[in-house]
Amino acid sequence: MTLHTTPTSTGRGFPLEEFEARTARAQEFMQTQGLDALLLMTEPEVAYFAGFNSYFWQSPTRPWFLLVPSAGKPIAIVPGIGVKAVSETWITDIRTWASPNPDDEGVSVLAQTIREVAKKHQRIGLPLGPETHLRMPANDVEALREQIDGIAIADATGIVRSMRMIKSEREIKKLARICGLVSDAFYNVPSLIHAGLSEREAFSRFRIDILSRGADSVPFLIGTSGPGGYDDVVRFPSDRILQEGDILFLDTGSEFDGYFSDFDRNFALGHASDEAKSAYRLLHRATEAGLQSARPGVRTNDIWSAMASVLAEGGASASSIGRMGHGLGLRNTEWPSLMEDDDTIIMPGMVLAIEPGYEFAPGKFMLHEENIVVRDDGAELLSRRAPPELPIIG
Amino acid sequence: MTLHTTPTSTGRGFPLEEFEARTARAQEFMQTQGLDALLLMTEPEVAYFAGFNSYFWQSPTRPWFLLVPSAGKPIAIVPGIGVKAVSETWITDIRTWASPNPDDEGVSVLAQTIREVAKKHQRIGLPLGPETHLRMPANDVEALREQIDGIAIADATGIVRSMRMIKSEREIKKLARICGLVSDAFYNVPSLIHAGLSEREAFSRFRIDILSRGADSVPFLIGTSGPGGYDDVVRFPSDRILQEGDILFLDTGSEFDGYFSDFDRNFALGHASDEAKSAYRLLHRATEAGLQSARPGVRTNDIWSAMASVLAEGGASASSIGRMGHGLGLRNTEWPSLMEDDDTIIMPGMVLAIEPGYEFAPGKFMLHEENIVVRDDGAELLSRRAPPELPIIG
Repeated sequence: MTLHTTPTSTGRGFPLEEFEARTARAQEFMQTQGLDALLLMTEPEVAYFAGFNSYFWQSPTRPWFLLVPSAGKPIAIVPGIGVKAVSETWITDIRTWASPNPDDEGVSVLAQTIREVAKKHQRIGLPLGPETHLRMPANDVEALREQIDGIAIADATGIVRSMRMIKSEREIKKLARICGLVSDAFYNVPSLIHAGLSEREAFSRFRIDILSRGADSVPFLIGTSGPGGYDDVVRFPSDRILQEGDILFLDTGSEFDGYFSDFDRNFALGHASDEAKSAYRLLHRATEAGLQSARPGVRTNDIWSAMASVLAEGGASASSIGRMGHGLGLRNTEWPSLMEDDDTIIMPGMVLAIEPGYEFAPGKFMLHEENIVVRDDGAELLSRRAPPELPIIG
Repeated sequence: MTLHTTPTSTGRGFPLEEFEARTARAQEFMQTQGLDALLLMTEPEVAYFAGFNSYFWQSPTRPWFLLVPSAGKPIAIVPGIGVKAVSETWITDIRTWASPNPDDEGVSVLAQTIREVAKKHQRIGLPLGPETHLRMPANDVEALREQIDGIAIADATGIVRSMRMIKSEREIKKLARICGLVSDAFYNVPSLIHAGLSEREAFSRFRIDILSRGADSVPFLIGTSGPGGYDDVVRFPSDRILQEGDILFLDTGSEFDGYFSDFDRNFALGHASDEAKSAYRLLHRATEAGLQSARPGVRTNDIWSAMASVLAEGGASASSIGRMGHGLGLRNTEWPSLMEDDDTIIMPGMVLAIEPGYEFAPGKFMLHEENIVVRDDGAELLSRRAPPELPIIG
């Protein structure tokens, strides 16, 4: 296993050939599956094929569509406000409508474009499966189906999943950069956070520190704490005051140029129980087992089992342990899931969160997490490895 | 009475009666429309009725459902990881499943719950219309329809829209708070930003400044610039170096406790053309016309017309002007739209962005924006009014 050094000068964006390669690969899949086009409409999908990024995805008012035909470049069907920005990507065929127009929010121009490209098989693909959704009003989905009557809609989740699960070297560089600077921020936590701050203040300092180091945004940031351990990793940080004896958990999905880190760290404030120290060591070993097992050719459930068998030493039953990791990239969580019921084959270029966790005492959980890229000879760390002993901070 | 989050002096969370009132209002609508329940599944909808907030909405892996029955409290149907956090809201009936489970990602437990509550009319409402989408895989939407066969699905966009468009005093306080601190940050721009910084650096300083003032997050932040004016308000900030003679545009949707501001400001670097100064003055007057016209009983297109008639003095034709404002609240843009084709009646409690803009020279746009709450006697500013003359900064 190699330690990845943090690159400092990774550029933004991608060269044209990156988008050409992605499009060509999608077109191979389309040919195999008899599809005339892929219709995409969520932020990561449009970014992946068009290189288009905008905070306008935050506004629910306007849909943004990309149609990747079985030959040629993708076609953008976007609201008028976006034409200028999309014209600065590699996309040249841009269809538009005056938006907002609730009576026809891009549906007819989209339908017309689909009819143009879906002549051969009369069949297009949309991601309809797990971890996808259609980002347009459900009534408009129905209207679209009617307006392209005769053109079949197939589930293209497998195409998008297969492609996005394997990262290019250029994507890996961006992921390494964000993981590197978040590692730096985690190393700086002892100088930022101490007993007496509220969870919310601690959380805010950490967020600002990550941004100051060059992250573009910190969309996902969990900060929770509790005496001797924490009992939840979902809720917002509270006004609870951090106290001596607490375990503080910080977990962030931070972003650089559209690509996310997703890993966490645990800290004890002032002192820690033997129980918590021991749980930390066990999780560190479970993570190590996950890292060692993450090699091309094994399956997601093999990595899960490697971690679960270490956690069993701490009394964690397989049934009490859920997912222990997942892909990441253009989102903080992506396919595949490292879990007992998943048997995705691990391949070089996959970027994964290795994330063992268990309830080490009633109402006390602990999670560890590292980010890796799978190489021919095994896992390469993108995050800098957490220390082997529970860090005790002020 | 209990609070759904830790009681604090910072005005976070809502008392129980807020959620009871929202639920009762939804139930009135349901009774009128013959619905047994509302099914909701996006972040703002679930926050609105359940008071549940989590960064886990960032992860596409798991859906989160809320069923508001025609009587009684809402029922949450959430993945296992969320049960603890949801149990800290006012919701007591929480159904769950072991997630991820791509073969049944909550669909069967959701269908079972719908069947339980949809006995009278055998009809439930979902938001299917403009500015909504279903945040679950399209295949699962089909599976759900099959599993609740015999129970009709009606479009409940109107219910959610009617309710969320009118803000309670408690919501208005949160909106006033985020608008106030963003106003402070805009007033501080001259000390943060100057020629020689890149757009991205300027943008990053502004983001960190907003967070330092107490915003919880800054999900939407547009920063763009150009010599004498800018030509786009959609793209990400670039590495372009700010120069003397530029117009810099900053627009942010910043968030406090789930509620968003959405307004912008313009700055000239060093000096400005008479043309740009004049455009700024015209937009300031157009904004004033918008503010003066925003009274209960008028319609959205009346406010639009008031602004458009001022912009006409600058040569802007009605056809070249799109939407000039919108609602805001749990999102940076919400219903209604201030546009020529919209005739929503303005009511007290509406919180609106008043946002005139036009192309004052070829390839040079300018937008102004203020946030208001509509009171019985007219508009009350939530943002602090932009200065009447284009501010010139270092």
